Amino acid sequence: MIQITDAHKVVKVEDGTITSPKGFVAGGLHCGLRRSKKDYGLLMSVQPASVAAVYTQSHFQAPPLKVTQESIASSQKIQALAVNSAIANACTGKEGLVNAYKMRSLIAERYVVPEDYVAVASTGVIGQQLEMDKIEHGSMNVQPSKEGDHDFQKAILTTDTCEKSACYQLEVDGKTVTIAGAAKGSGMIHPNMATMLGFITTDAKIESEHLQYALSQSIDKSFNQITVDGETSTNDMVLTMANGTIDHQDLTPQHSQWEAFQKTLQLVCEDLAKQIAKDGEGATKLIEVNVTGALSDEDARAVAKKVVGSNLVKTAVYGVDANWGRIVGAIGHSDAQVNAENCDIYIESQLVFSNGTPCSFSEDQAIADMSKETVMIHIELHEGTGSGTAWGCDLTYDYVKINASYRT
Amino acid sequence: MIQITDAHKVVKVEDGTITSPKGFVAGGLHCGLRRSKKDYGLLMSVQPASVAAVYTQSHFQAPPLKVTQESIASSQKIQALAVNSAIANACTGKEGLVNAYKMRSLIAERYVVPEDYVAVASTGVIGQQLEMDKIEHGSMNVQPSKEGDHDFQKAILTTDTCEKSACYQLEVDGKTVTIAGAAKGSGMIHPNMATMLGFITTDAKIESEHLQYALSQSIDKSFNQITVDGETSTNDMVLTMANGTIDHQDLTPQHSQWEAFQKTLQLVCEDLAKQIAKDGEGATKLIEVNVTGALSDEDARAVAKKVVGSNLVKTAVYGVDANWGRIVGAIGHSDAQVNAENCDIYIESQLVFSNGTPCSFSEDQAIADMSKETVMIHIELHEGTGSGTAWGCDLTYDYVKINASYRT
Repeated sequence: MIQITDAHKVVKVEDGTITSPKGFVAGGLHCGLRRSKKDYGLLMSVQPASVAAVYTQSHFQAPPLKVTQESIASSQKIQALAVNSAIANACTGKEGLVNAYKMRSLIAERYVVPEDYVAVASTGVIGQQLEMDKIEHGSMNVQPSKEGDHDFQKAILTTDTCEKSACYQLEVDGKTVTIAGAAKGSGMIHPNMATMLGFITTDAKIESEHLQYALSQSIDKSFNQITVDGETSTNDMVLTMANGTIDHQDLTPQHSQWEAFQKTLQLVCEDLAKQIAKDGEGATKLIEVNVTGALSDEDARAVAKKVVGSNLVKTAVYGVDANWGRIVGAIGHSDAQVNAENCDIYIESQLVFSNGTPCSFSEDQAIADMSKETVMIHIELHEGTGSGTAWGCDLTYDYVKINASYRT
Repeated sequence: MIQITDAHKVVKVEDGTITSPKGFVAGGLHCGLRRSKKDYGLLMSVQPASVAAVYTQSHFQAPPLKVTQESIASSQKIQALAVNSAIANACTGKEGLVNAYKMRSLIAERYVVPEDYVAVASTGVIGQQLEMDKIEHGSMNVQPSKEGDHDFQKAILTTDTCEKSACYQLEVDGKTVTIAGAAKGSGMIHPNMATMLGFITTDAKIESEHLQYALSQSIDKSFNQITVDGETSTNDMVLTMANGTIDHQDLTPQHSQWEAFQKTLQLVCEDLAKQIAKDGEGATKLIEVNVTGALSDEDARAVAKKVVGSNLVKTAVYGVDANWGRIVGAIGHSDAQVNAENCDIYIESQLVFSNGTPCSFSEDQAIADMSKETVMIHIELHEGTGSGTAWGCDLTYDYVKINASYRT
């Protein structure tokens, strides 16, 4: 049980998946884009679902993102989501757009749903056209079911080393609502295998407009706060479907359990985001940076992200080196309001820097703390009450190996 | 001879150093902060010189920067500059500030110049106090001379693998004016050996106010356009002294040779900046990114810096991989106005991406081009007439090694 607001607790469902919320089915198969791994997935709701999505901030948005945005703008509902891995369908010009439309219409025809009830997503190599005969094969042969959850969750991966899913439950009007998600990362992993994708399902009853509001709030504190190498892809997308299968009062910001719902959605996003960061290219450790005492939450998140994104901090964590000087460097480099004389830095529970000067601390303890799977850095700025967190991973020889040895 | 404006040419003086301009002397010695390498340097002008400087944008400015800023604000002239390596005197609190003042007064007393004619700079480990007996030993024993140029240029280095200097000459009112500089880098090289320092001398006659204007213009297109790992140090400083030894008309923006002077100063800055980028931590190659057709010069510089700073582009260059997808990713990630359908990307002379899609190109030629010591990437945005350049280096196993293996 996790206390999320004064009045509410949520339960983490340890083996929950994308099909745990009522009325969702999924499937995945090998359609032939990859050598042998699953590369085509389909997620469906038993009825049209409210939908919310956020997309990459890159100037280069891939065709599938354009088609999905068009579907959502037109219908405000989504019933099916088709995803392929291996080929990103990015930087593919007009032909790429035609192919993304075709990928959508194949599912619309097969399941007799309006085209604008279908979303599409792709991830993989940039600059190659989709092989449409294989996409068609996938569309025709995928069999979504409650038990197809892991097949779907595997089909969306590229060079990820593991499936990523999260599931939480809360009570709304005395009824159990489930929110679950699946994701793939991990930053700009393998060269052009760029994308971060997140798909979230819930059986809650909520209009798209309010779902979008809840999602946007959650994203700022989760997916937008992770960094593997500071890169943004052409295909990043997080899409949420709420099919209203559970019969509670419509969730709006006026509902007494609105905050609990939003925070649970945020928990799902945060859980997935941390799994992505931890599975970063060549990563051996998750780094979590908590900033408190900032002038605003935005400032706190900016400082946290600057520190967790610093190549020097990342290599120090890899080297199990309590190198507070690099943390100071990264804080100083941020746009937030910071006063050198006032800030405290902790590595796990040890104060290593305070009042503008280093503190004496146990190097042995620091080595033990930094040898853990998750390394916690806490920064207190003493400027206000803003707080925020960011997650990342260490920078290792394997990062260079993965990214330098491709194609050569 | 380099044509810098329609009417002017400048000459690069191949073996020129910081003491090539008339009326400057320098020296360096081992004062004991490092094991055996030179660690204390002094640069002097025969007469008080006009001065201009720019400092790190970090929120954490080290004490020597504060003292130097105070000297310049008080006198608008500088006659001596004392520098130590090994210890940055950063994050050292009140004691650090007292020590920086002491480092200044030692030189003022020894050479009988006003304290506010003396600037100080430090580079090295953060969080340690200067050992003042050694600084005093350096101050008393350093012997600046015309021939002490290389001793000075060596004394300011930390983990740099080579001295960095540049020297150019131009004609002003028919007389030869020399501008020279020395620098140390290379980004946040060895862990806390953070700093980028640049010192420029010239025998030109120019008021501090105008020199500051010329320097600030030059910095934006040189030192501010290099990146090794995106980090900013607590001690970064570029300081320029102009002692007016050559008897031409005062240089002001109204002087007919103003533009030639400013561009020559910029050449010196650019030359030093490129040497720093090339000597980046573990680097094997210099990367130069030229952006044309941007909406503004600022946009062009922003795109260039985003591309040259991308870990994925840097590892691709290390891996000799013509991976235009990563360049696209970095361009898309910038804040500049960019249209995916319009931009062209060249690696050396080969067009690899155009009209939003990849071009066919010779992989063999690309491998040959990317195996050179300097790899050129050219991006045409087709948005306007803005242009800009940035320099960086590849990301290698040695970068991780240097930064992860310290202290452990």
